Amino acid sequence: VVAAPGPPTGVHLFPLVGLPEVAAGDDLSALLGDAIDHAGGLEDGDVLVVAHKVVSKAEGRVARAATRDDHRALVLSESRRVRRHRGDLLIVETRHGFVCATAGVDQSNTPGDDLVVLLPLDPDASAATLRSALEQRFGVTIAVVVSDSFGRAWRHGTMDIAVGVAGMLPILDLQGQPDRRGRILETTQIAVADELASAAELVMGKTTGRPGAIIRGYETPLGDGRATDLVMPRELDLFP
Amino acid sequence: VVAAPGPPTGVHLFPLVGLPEVAAGDDLSALLGDAIDHAGGLEDGDVLVVAHKVVSKAEGRVARAATRDDHRALVLSESRRVRRHRGDLLIVETRHGFVCATAGVDQSNTPGDDLVVLLPLDPDASAATLRSALEQRFGVTIAVVVSDSFGRAWRHGTMDIAVGVAGMLPILDLQGQPDRRGRILETTQIAVADELASAAELVMGKTTGRPGAIIRGYETPLGDGRATDLVMPRELDLFP
Repeated sequence: VVAAPGPPTGVHLFPLVGLPEVAAGDDLSALLGDAIDHAGGLEDGDVLVVAHKVVSKAEGRVARAATRDDHRALVLSESRRVRRHRGDLLIVETRHGFVCATAGVDQSNTPGDDLVVLLPLDPDASAATLRSALEQRFGVTIAVVVSDSFGRAWRHGTMDIAVGVAGMLPILDLQGQPDRRGRILETTQIAVADELASAAELVMGKTTGRPGAIIRGYETPLGDGRATDLVMPRELDLFP
Repeated sequence: VVAAPGPPTGVHLFPLVGLPEVAAGDDLSALLGDAIDHAGGLEDGDVLVVAHKVVSKAEGRVARAATRDDHRALVLSESRRVRRHRGDLLIVETRHGFVCATAGVDQSNTPGDDLVVLLPLDPDASAATLRSALEQRFGVTIAVVVSDSFGRAWRHGTMDIAVGVAGMLPILDLQGQPDRRGRILETTQIAVADELASAAELVMGKTTGRPGAIIRGYETPLGDGRATDLVMPRELDLFP
């Protein structure tokens, strides 16, 4: 076999469409599986990115918050520490260690006007459950990323990042690998799970009811990683 | 004309390969244009992501730093303010307002062991120059993103983000647009230029000599934006 000439074929991002509104107790892997069927199925090495909202809804991680005070109380109950606050805005550390606004408590696209969606209790476990069911259904080996939109320090706008992963290492560690001139790179750790989440956001959108995406053609760093591996311990953080 | 049935075709990321080592004074748009030819050319609506390193090299933004002290002096001369420091690590605000480690001064993949690559003086202008030349060569309308790998507060690992843009708005502003249930979203600003940079990183890599990527099929928010629009003014930042 001779390798095909021409440029590398690159990476393809497909949105999942047609998922119905998800409710507590729904079998999310079955619903996602049907949407994946509609997109042409899964292949070995695919990364499935799923917005945390549908995961949380299936797991019953919704709550009622009719007033601002309700919302604030809920954010605090989802937090293990408040890092900063200004007016109604709370930047907190969630139970998982993620630093974000309002502990990921989110009002848009919820099934009722007073209902808000929380982060899954253990998004890595959610990712592992989805991975296992979908690998069995499609007879393939894949990685799963559960994503959310987080604001950042210093820059406007959100980027999607990984709050849960399964079947991959969230960080590609190039420490000790030579660069193209043969010298050893000092420290290059790439948060590829976060980059995969951001890439998927480009086809998922916020208002269009596309709760996931398939990423095909990316050489995922394989291993038994967790999104919590991405959390910098507070004592190492220069912006605690 | 009837729309084709089936799922949306998604977004495709192609790496640019075969770019020679870039030196000060090289016509980068011509070199990139040849690599783009090899990848099959450009189409209307494509986003071209280019690693800042090749831009900086073409613009002569390299410097000599033989010792740690040289390196530190260079980082400080590239900075308008030091935000944090610990040991050799400096988190600074660059001349452009970007907050990052070592002012983007970077030792890997440089043409000589003592040479380091700086950020372009005006990466938005660099992006505009590339855009103009490549639009003319290929007879298309495109957007250009100049990218770099930045660390983050609170999370391990780098993500690629936009330090320069041309032909697009760096933020997709969904303020005031209804979600899928018809309610108005409160504030959703997505840093799509940063997400495009991160998506491109998935096919560019750090060690493989792939200094750019074509992103095809993404509906870029059009407009005359600048990457400095992404910079949060220090007085609004909760982590100054």
